[in-house]
Amino acid sequence: MKIRPLGDRVVIKRLEAEEKTKSGIVLTGTAKERPQEAEVVAVGPGGYVDGKEIKMEVTVGDKVLFSKYAGTEVKMDGEEYTILKQDDILAIVE
Amino acid sequence: MKIRPLGDRVVIKRLEAEEKTKSGIVLTGTAKERPQEAEVVAVGPGGYVDGKEIKMEVTVGDKVLFSKYAGTEVKMDGEEYTILKQDDILAIVE
Amino acid sequence: MKIRPLGDRVVIKRLEAEEKTKSGIVLTGTAKERPQEAEVVAVGPGGYVDGKEIKMEVTVGDKVLFSKYAGTEVKMDGEEYTILKQDDILAIVE
Amino acid sequence: MKIRPLGDRVVIKRLEAEEKTKSGIVLTGTAKERPQEAEVVAVGPGGYVDGKEIKMEVTVGDKVLFSKYAGTEVKMDGEEYTILKQDDILAIVE
Amino acid sequence: MKIRPLGDRVVIKRLEAEEKTKSGIVLTGTAKERPQEAEVVAVGPGGYVDGKEIKMEVTVGDKVLFSKYAGTEVKMDGEEYTILKQDDILAIVE
Amino acid sequence: MKIRPLGDRVVIKRLEAEEKTKSGIVLTGTAKERPQEAEVVAVGPGGYVDGKEIKMEVTVGDKVLFSKYAGTEVKMDGEEYTILKQDDILAIVE
Amino acid sequence: MKIRPLGDRVVIKRLEAEEKTKSGIVLTGTAKERPQEAEVVAVGPGGYVDGKEIKMEVTVGDKVLFSKYAGTEVKMDGEEYTILKQDDILAIVE
Repeated sequence: MKIRPLGDRVVIKRLEAEEKTKSGIVLTGTAKERPQEAEVVAVGPGGYVDGKEIKMEVTVGDKVLFSKYAGTEVKMDGEEYTILKQDDILAIVE
Repeated sequence: MKIRPLGDRVVIKRLEAEEKTKSGIVLTGTAKERPQEAEVVAVGPGGYVDGKEIKMEVTVGDKVLFSKYAGTEVKMDGEEYTILKQDDILAIVE
Repeated sequence: MKIRPLGDRVVIKRLEAEEKTKSGIVLTGTAKERPQEAEVVAVGPGGYVDGKEIKMEVTVGDKVLFSKYAGTEVKMDGEEYTILKQDDILAIVE
Repeated sequence: MKIRPLGDRVVIKRLEAEEKTKSGIVLTGTAKERPQEAEVVAVGPGGYVDGKEIKMEVTVGDKVLFSKYAGTEVKMDGEEYTILKQDDILAIVE
Repeated sequence: MKIRPLGDRVVIKRLEAEEKTKSGIVLTGTAKERPQEAEVVAVGPGGYVDGKEIKMEVTVGDKVLFSKYAGTEVKMDGEEYTILKQDDILAIVE
Repeated sequence: MKIRPLGDRVVIKRLEAEEKTKSGIVLTGTAKERPQEAEVVAVGPGGYVDGKEIKMEVTVGDKVLFSKYAGTEVKMDGEEYTILKQDDILAIVE
Repeated sequence: MKIRPLGDRVVIKRLEAEEKTKSGIVLTGTAKERPQEAEVVAVGPGGYVDGKEIKMEVTVGDKVLFSKYAGTEVKMDGEEYTILKQDDILAIVE
């Protein structure tokens, strides 16, 4: 079973939500804006979304920072995922 | 009798709303955002909707995740359907 | 006497507002969103409305579902009509 | 003396505001949305208004339905007029 | 000394604010919307304002009706002027 | 040291804020809207700002009127400046 | 490890937040609007962001002024950074 996101949506798998993440980034900021680290597991096709051209910049396997409260969580095969718009992804961690 | 949705609207038939759905996806998240699983039964033509070009990405028979409170419910021939905008569909489950 | 709607407006004649309509559709949903069944009696020319290209998708005689509280009601020659924007029409019932 | 409206504005002269108008249309609806019957006395040039192309669809002499509280009233040579945007006109009565 | 308005702004000199204006127009309406009569004394170049093409329709010397509370007042050489956007001008009085 | 504003921003140096300015303009209006006189000291490149084409109309040395509370103040080399969007400039005083 | 911002986002490293900054600029204004000085450490690719063309005007190493509360803070390798949209950058200090 697979989730294929529509438009400019992206499916990500959240990494550690602890203060000190695996990669060594300590996430700070207000609760509302505190970013989370995650791995991209599926990427929508982009294209014209709501009449605007959206080019997907992330690819499967990317480590990304995203806004904690963005998107919708689903659990599949025992794992939790988040479906969110690419614009809710702040940056790729390399 | 058939419902033919206008523009970028889609008619879907909701699948199990229980915690554990048929396909094994457990839907979590806030009540307001909790997604639902459904099957697409009719798809609008898309095209220019409110002056923006909308390309339909779902087709009849697709299993989709959508926001629980999106759209409008109608009952036809004893079955309940939901009419919603394609943008309220989060992802296709394959 | 005839009402000719402007732009993307449509004039419709509401059908039964009862729980069980003529066509057998039972309309449910919240009061605010409960759709109504109606017949289209006049269709605006569409074209550029507020700078956006609107193509009319309904034609006179179509049975449609629309949001109950959308539009403005007028009575003419003893009959009640509703003038609303095409975007407030959810679907055509065939 | 003449009022020449700018852009997509229209000057109309309100007809009877009574429940039963001259043309036999009885206007109903909520107070906020109750339409009024009027005659068009001057029409703006349309064209690009706020960067959007507006094509004027009404002409001088048209009987129109408009939202009661739309626009601004002015009195000139003893007669009252209303200046409003064409988009506040719902339909032409023929 | 001269004020040269930017973009789609216009400088006007307010005429009588009394109930019965020089030209014989009696201005009515709610206080918030009551129009005022004025003479145009300077006109911005128009062109692309905030990315939208604005064509100036008024010229110096025009008598115009405008929304009383629109724009900003300045006093220069003992005279009061109002700087406002052309869109706040309702009509030209001829 | 120099401040180079981005996009459609402009750096201005506020002139007298007193009721009667150097140039003889007396500024009136509500506190929120009371304009200020200033001299332009730096002008952004304009171009596509937020996807809209902005053409800069002011140049260094222009005396301008601007909305008092617009923009952000910075002090540099003992002098106070304001950084604001060109659209917050009402007019050029010549 | 490196942060690569998406779209029109920029990663900056905040310089002194004190009243008198290194470069001699004293930052004033309301708390909400008080600008901060920072150095640009990474710049997104720009391009079409949300359907609008954004051209990046800052480059790595630029000293910039930005709105204090704009963006999201992250700590990486013991250093604090801020990820923000280029539009939240007011000016480049040279």
